[in-house]
Amino acid sequence: MNTQVFEQALQNLQLEHHQVFKHETERATFDLKTYLSERKNQVEAALKQSITVVYPEKIYEAMSYSLLAGGKRLRPILCLASCELSGGIVEMAMPTACALEMIHTMSLIHDDLPAMDNDDYRRGRLTNHKVYGEDIAILAGDGLLAYAFGFVVSKTKEVSDTNLLQVVSKLSYAVAATGLVGGQVLDLEFEGKQNIDIETLNFIHAHKTGALLEASVVCGAILAGANDEVLQRLSRYARNIGLAFQIIDDVLDVTATSEELGKTAGKDEKAQKATYPSLWGIEESKRQARRLVDEANVELIPFQDKAIPLMAIAEYITNRTH
Amino acid sequence: MNTQVFEQALQNLQLEHHQVFKHETERATFDLKTYLSERKNQVEAALKQSITVVYPEKIYEAMSYSLLAGGKRLRPILCLASCELSGGIVEMAMPTACALEMIHTMSLIHDDLPAMDNDDYRRGRLTNHKVYGEDIAILAGDGLLAYAFGFVVSKTKEVSDTNLLQVVSKLSYAVAATGLVGGQVLDLEFEGKQNIDIETLNFIHAHKTGALLEASVVCGAILAGANDEVLQRLSRYARNIGLAFQIIDDVLDVTATSEELGKTAGKDEKAQKATYPSLWGIEESKRQARRLVDEANVELIPFQDKAIPLMAIAEYITNRTH
Repeated sequence: MNTQVFEQALQNLQLEHHQVFKHETERATFDLKTYLSERKNQVEAALKQSITVVYPEKIYEAMSYSLLAGGKRLRPILCLASCELSGGIVEMAMPTACALEMIHTMSLIHDDLPAMDNDDYRRGRLTNHKVYGEDIAILAGDGLLAYAFGFVVSKTKEVSDTNLLQVVSKLSYAVAATGLVGGQVLDLEFEGKQNIDIETLNFIHAHKTGALLEASVVCGAILAGANDEVLQRLSRYARNIGLAFQIIDDVLDVTATSEELGKTAGKDEKAQKATYPSLWGIEESKRQARRLVDEANVELIPFQDKAIPLMAIAEYITNRTH
Repeated sequence: MNTQVFEQALQNLQLEHHQVFKHETERATFDLKTYLSERKNQVEAALKQSITVVYPEKIYEAMSYSLLAGGKRLRPILCLASCELSGGIVEMAMPTACALEMIHTMSLIHDDLPAMDNDDYRRGRLTNHKVYGEDIAILAGDGLLAYAFGFVVSKTKEVSDTNLLQVVSKLSYAVAATGLVGGQVLDLEFEGKQNIDIETLNFIHAHKTGALLEASVVCGAILAGANDEVLQRLSRYARNIGLAFQIIDDVLDVTATSEELGKTAGKDEKAQKATYPSLWGIEESKRQARRLVDEANVELIPFQDKAIPLMAIAEYITNRTH
């Protein structure tokens, strides 16, 4: 976004600020922590039901091990929130929410493999290949990715076939070389290289994490039958918070302790990884993340109260300490 | 199939034999070699157009390298033939035919990895990870698998949304732990073990190769709008030829030379792999394959001339020398 467009957006934000604050009561009663925790529980329950362990048990156990290993469940929660913002109900979006987590889990299992990041621990537990072996870990990832699509198609109710096909397509391109996979390839290519420019860093993150976050938000709205303008707004919201999320991740890697993060701090510097703080410094990185979140929330103003959860999630992204 | 049912089916086959031979002229003019070669060319052309190399080029090149490495293209050809048998046209099924080959290619790339079969060559060329590295090979497989679903949805024309969703679902379950992935897991588990029984061997092949072959045939018919009875017949046809194909593969591994096979012969014995010849002997294996092909073709009798290509493919499976 160029400066002029951004200034305009900021002005709009200020102009419409009182409009948001008309709903001060709703905002005041909205407790993000409770909201996230309730939603997480709903998602966990649905994920637990999504895989039945049958013969040959080992592969179902390996998939479940990583799928049910906890985490923020941010993608499913975004999907459900976006569906509700667009006039849908949670039940419509739950199968897609689960599929998003299956896909995300696949990317973590494969990312942790010795041929990739070679990580022994993830979320405080041994990584999939450390428990089940590399061969099964590769297959568990493949199994989750393949299953995600059939799960969406066979479990989604009360959604038109046309919208469901759009969701399948959106998920597919968000993971393929046009999305997550493309971002990971570039990330691997620039590992240990310091001469990375901001465009490349943005490309990596817009694809590696951004594409699936965007799909999470947009799919929720597609399922609810949202029109193109709504989809566009939500897509811009999601791309902005996706990038902000990554910037704050990079900042926390420098400023937070390992205890706060629940994972090793200072990993990026040790790996000589190009990050936003390494290009911009800490303060400018924080300012840019703040700007992206403001821009994201500008997109949601027309939805008034219905946007409160997504706005709060955007705020949480910049304010989080882990 | 128990003996009684099989005898009945054989009797039906004999009873209706003259019915097939009424169409002797069409059968006589049908040349399978030309048919397969023409279809292969059509599929190759469509596959070449299916991937455009854009930034970051490396991942698109890695995917293309394996996707365009040749092979019989049996799955796409089965899909197109089944679509035509069911009254559809080739164009309706071509995107799904390509998607089947993307999925099959993913399974080969991941199967060849050092953590799996650790193969350096495939179809006379270096395997994907030998050229691009293990990390890229894993991602190329993931990319192909994810892309297959979006490709079907965005490229298929003249097919109802309901039928298209059924194809997505069928493909998904054919690859997931309920299909190919489940078969591979069991195959790995029994590697080097001689105490495998016929049920387990059947399970492995029905899943590892059978599920995707069955999806190839059934998806072609779904795209053409076939009714349930047709889908059932084609599903049984496909499951029978899938198993026959594997039995003959095992037989050829013992009886053919490496030159004839285009790959190392005697690999199974060397790897102490349980095979059909190791359980049944060569002659009984051939007899069982013949029986399965006969049973497969019994299913196709009601389709008369339209079934000629699929019947010829079934015959080719038992008669091939490589």
